[in-house]
Amino acid sequence: MTPLQRILGIDLPVIQAPMAGIQASAMAVAVSNAGGLGSLPGAMLTLDALKRELAAIRAQTDQPYNVNFFCHVPPTPSEEREARWRDALAPYFAEFGIDPATIPAGAGRMPFTAEVADVIAEFKPPIVSFHFGLPTPELMSRVRSWGAKILSSATTVDEARWLAAHGVDAIIAQGLEAGGHRGIFLSSDLTTQVGTFALLAQIVRAVNVPVIAAGGIADAAGIKAALSLGAIAAQVGTVYMLCPEASTSAPHRAALQSEAARHTALTNLFTGRPARGIVNRLMRELGSISAAAPEFPLATAAIAPLRAAAEKLGSGDFSPLWSGQNASGCKEIGAAELTRELADDAAQQIREYK
Amino acid sequence: MTPLQRILGIDLPVIQAPMAGIQASAMAVAVSNAGGLGSLPGAMLTLDALKRELAAIRAQTDQPYNVNFFCHVPPTPSEEREARWRDALAPYFAEFGIDPATIPAGAGRMPFTAEVADVIAEFKPPIVSFHFGLPTPELMSRVRSWGAKILSSATTVDEARWLAAHGVDAIIAQGLEAGGHRGIFLSSDLTTQVGTFALLAQIVRAVNVPVIAAGGIADAAGIKAALSLGAIAAQVGTVYMLCPEASTSAPHRAALQSEAARHTALTNLFTGRPARGIVNRLMRELGSISAAAPEFPLATAAIAPLRAAAEKLGSGDFSPLWSGQNASGCKEIGAAELTRELADDAAQQIREYK
Repeated sequence: MTPLQRILGIDLPVIQAPMAGIQASAMAVAVSNAGGLGSLPGAMLTLDALKRELAAIRAQTDQPYNVNFFCHVPPTPSEEREARWRDALAPYFAEFGIDPATIPAGAGRMPFTAEVADVIAEFKPPIVSFHFGLPTPELMSRVRSWGAKILSSATTVDEARWLAAHGVDAIIAQGLEAGGHRGIFLSSDLTTQVGTFALLAQIVRAVNVPVIAAGGIADAAGIKAALSLGAIAAQVGTVYMLCPEASTSAPHRAALQSEAARHTALTNLFTGRPARGIVNRLMRELGSISAAAPEFPLATAAIAPLRAAAEKLGSGDFSPLWSGQNASGCKEIGAAELTRELADDAAQQIREYK
Repeated sequence: MTPLQRILGIDLPVIQAPMAGIQASAMAVAVSNAGGLGSLPGAMLTLDALKRELAAIRAQTDQPYNVNFFCHVPPTPSEEREARWRDALAPYFAEFGIDPATIPAGAGRMPFTAEVADVIAEFKPPIVSFHFGLPTPELMSRVRSWGAKILSSATTVDEARWLAAHGVDAIIAQGLEAGGHRGIFLSSDLTTQVGTFALLAQIVRAVNVPVIAAGGIADAAGIKAALSLGAIAAQVGTVYMLCPEASTSAPHRAALQSEAARHTALTNLFTGRPARGIVNRLMRELGSISAAAPEFPLATAAIAPLRAAAEKLGSGDFSPLWSGQNASGCKEIGAAELTRELADDAAQQIREYK
């Protein structure tokens, strides 16, 4: 029995990264049925929607799957910060004819809570992964009560040691190349963030827990390289974003397939926490990291109507175009087929030089 | 004949990264005689010293070696910027009792020029590598005239394409993890910089020129992973900094062996261009990137006496503690032995999980 089989119950060393707002049960089912580990992102689902998606997974696969949640502490909204943020966005509201007074405040992302645990307990998901650390010990015990394995992301060696000490079953080493939200939780200093090559090798040495590689891995050769560095599997996200099972928006799909995808940056504009996305107009004009953005996840609310208005015109200027630093492996093929290709050990993608 | 043998004339897929101020001929000789590619950094040598070091290499090895140069255009010194920089450093001058009026202005780093070409032409080095782009076409032809192969670093896919179009024999994909100066030359936007995993894979796909991996590679497993991603060899620097052949300062050696080495950042404080080093007092107090620092390489002069005074007290507070994001492979062993270990294909360093 390999560590992969023992801990995750899967045969192929491929974990489909949970991508909130981009995919739900359809992709998770396709990947799990293909032999990888499909993931359901819970952060943007209501409790009802979460229940529906879990039921859909259970109905369509008997293979292991993963449900993912954020572990942030919801901040106290600050009227002053919200006003400052809306001031920064005022020229855009004017451009699209949006009356800021009509924009509801709102969180946009839900943390893992006892209510969420109640919903998922019914389904006993075999794997539960967390981002931004871990929930309380009580909630951890709750999740363990049905035998689930627990994963979480580390962006530094310190975070990996912390997660190991808190009893996770495997650690996702999230390199700086990764798309979407940085899992960073012990610091807010972005200079602490490390590239996949360096992070993976050092976490493998630092902890006595299996390690999963994430960030910049886009094909079979990349997965092979991650395994050479001591990972038991790779978690890949960006590469799945063009699959028919993803709900990736049209401007987002176009950006991923263009030269624009080669320039991503960490930005806090869309949610309040640093996340990697393709550089677009909002990021260029406000700067990717802005002190005006409210605390996570409160930045989202004021951006939402701008995003909706721009997308209606076919533009991704105000959308979070999440992507890792390597979108070269994106393919418009089914998630099952893509999973099998990623796991292909032949690594025929490795270029032979003449 | 492998690409490695054809282009670099070596058997082991290991290039010792040129590290100006840290090593000279002794290390290059040791690495080349062990079957890797030793490098002599030329950027901080006078013409006389360059000649001496090249003569030393020629006297001690008949194996291929590399000489490396910077390709920056020396800036016009600005009195105003220099004054602003010295203002920023004033509290430190006071702390160490240094009279800023006694500090000579000076460049600190020499670009590749016709005079340099005259010196090296006598020795016909088989490999010449450049950082910050390439020299003029005339100088390129001059270097080619004795059959030298030309390498340069790319930090983005765009830079790799540019270098390929300008006829380099191989491209060093310098991932964001790498220590020392970023080779960035087509942009000054640091958000364009990509981690090794993502950069290497994309450059291998984008150009029809052999690619060498650099950044975060610290052991045999790392080199194996780089080869899986399509590199013909890995260029490793940090790992050699504790070798007896290196002139790494005592505080720098201590930092590399401490937990401090796990937090590096890009900084322009020591030279004016972004380079990766271990975070120290100066970087913490001024911020790693400061708008007050003069253009490369002019920031160096005013820092030099602070560095000297602090190092005399055993402190690296004002030293450029160059390091990549993975110092875990540093060993106090000879450079020849280290080269053989790095090339060891057994990759016994890969951890096996129970």
